[in-house]
Amino acid sequence: MQITPGDLNNKALHELFMSAFLPRPIAFVSTIGADGVLNAAPFSSVAPIGLKPALVCFNIGRKGNGQKKDTLKNIESCGEFVVNVVDEALAEQMNQAAADYPPEVDEFKKTGLTPVKSLLVKPPVIGESPVNMECKLKQILEFGEASTGSHVIIGEILLVHVREELWTGIDIDVSKLKPIGRLGAQFYCRTTDVFEMKRPEAKV
Amino acid sequence: MQITPGDLNNKALHELFMSAFLPRPIAFVSTIGADGVLNAAPFSSVAPIGLKPALVCFNIGRKGNGQKKDTLKNIESCGEFVVNVVDEALAEQMNQAAADYPPEVDEFKKTGLTPVKSLLVKPPVIGESPVNMECKLKQILEFGEASTGSHVIIGEILLVHVREELWTGIDIDVSKLKPIGRLGAQFYCRTTDVFEMKRPEAKV
Repeated sequence: MQITPGDLNNKALHELFMSAFLPRPIAFVSTIGADGVLNAAPFSSVAPIGLKPALVCFNIGRKGNGQKKDTLKNIESCGEFVVNVVDEALAEQMNQAAADYPPEVDEFKKTGLTPVKSLLVKPPVIGESPVNMECKLKQILEFGEASTGSHVIIGEILLVHVREELWTGIDIDVSKLKPIGRLGAQFYCRTTDVFEMKRPEAKV
Repeated sequence: MQITPGDLNNKALHELFMSAFLPRPIAFVSTIGADGVLNAAPFSSVAPIGLKPALVCFNIGRKGNGQKKDTLKNIESCGEFVVNVVDEALAEQMNQAAADYPPEVDEFKKTGLTPVKSLLVKPPVIGESPVNMECKLKQILEFGEASTGSHVIIGEILLVHVREELWTGIDIDVSKLKPIGRLGAQFYCRTTDVFEMKRPEAKV
């Protein structure tokens, strides 16, 4: 069957793409408002997009009512944010933080997360998260119309915190990290069913 | 422990970020060269980044020798590409296509993939892939220096093909789709270990 995206409304498009691009990593993003209120919210349309400079991008959609989300407003005003990795142990609090709280609600307090002072940026690291990346805003891309379009945040990763016992010497040990991935609808996956494929040499 | 990205070389940064952002979806991208040679290559730094317009972005790094990859050259010359989803059955051929072939090699022939005529764009759909998205180039972002930097392709999704039996009526059934995710090093995961978390109402 063929589907023309232009024919669908935003809700139907969201269901389609969230069930087509998967499994997706989750960026649990911590920010701070102009009024000092802390915010933490998960985003799953996220990708590392550069090494030098070290860059990450993630997509922020609109709220159901067409308004900007707090994370976007906070990044616009502060210019900094932290990307926190979500492991199995953090899943429940991450999901709680995904609820649509008003801007004056501090998701750290609401969901029992521990704000830990960052070294280079104003927003705190989520203490319960095993890997945290302190980021400086580089660019915001805006697409579509104000009420239905999207914003793409591009940030430079200034500093990475990795929980000591997860480091192999070269990279992060996935079997110890136990990250969860986002699927479509309200589904998630664990990363337990792992296999290896060696990249082949090109035989021309 | 803390890691400052600016202190690491490209190889070390790649290992770090590929093991921190995970599991990642895989875009198996088909393109066509100015000379008509077909190309298929997998990219795992990919995200859906908009609904209206329907957008996808993915990152193309440099080859080891600093040169542009064929996928980038083909998208620059053609302005079109197809994103194909990778399921368990397609894993081996996708991995074969990841080898560093010279531009005159057709990865479809090399790895036994079936090119199927697209409806709206010049590059073919990968017949063995269960979900395909015909895309038109919208924008290329370039970051960093020529030899070590990255390119981010932003495409508009014009048409989505979904294998009939995968469609639930609302979205794609993940248990039938059986997509694989990219982890760090040479590891992948199946999406078999699934759980559900209902998004809570905000209790203020």
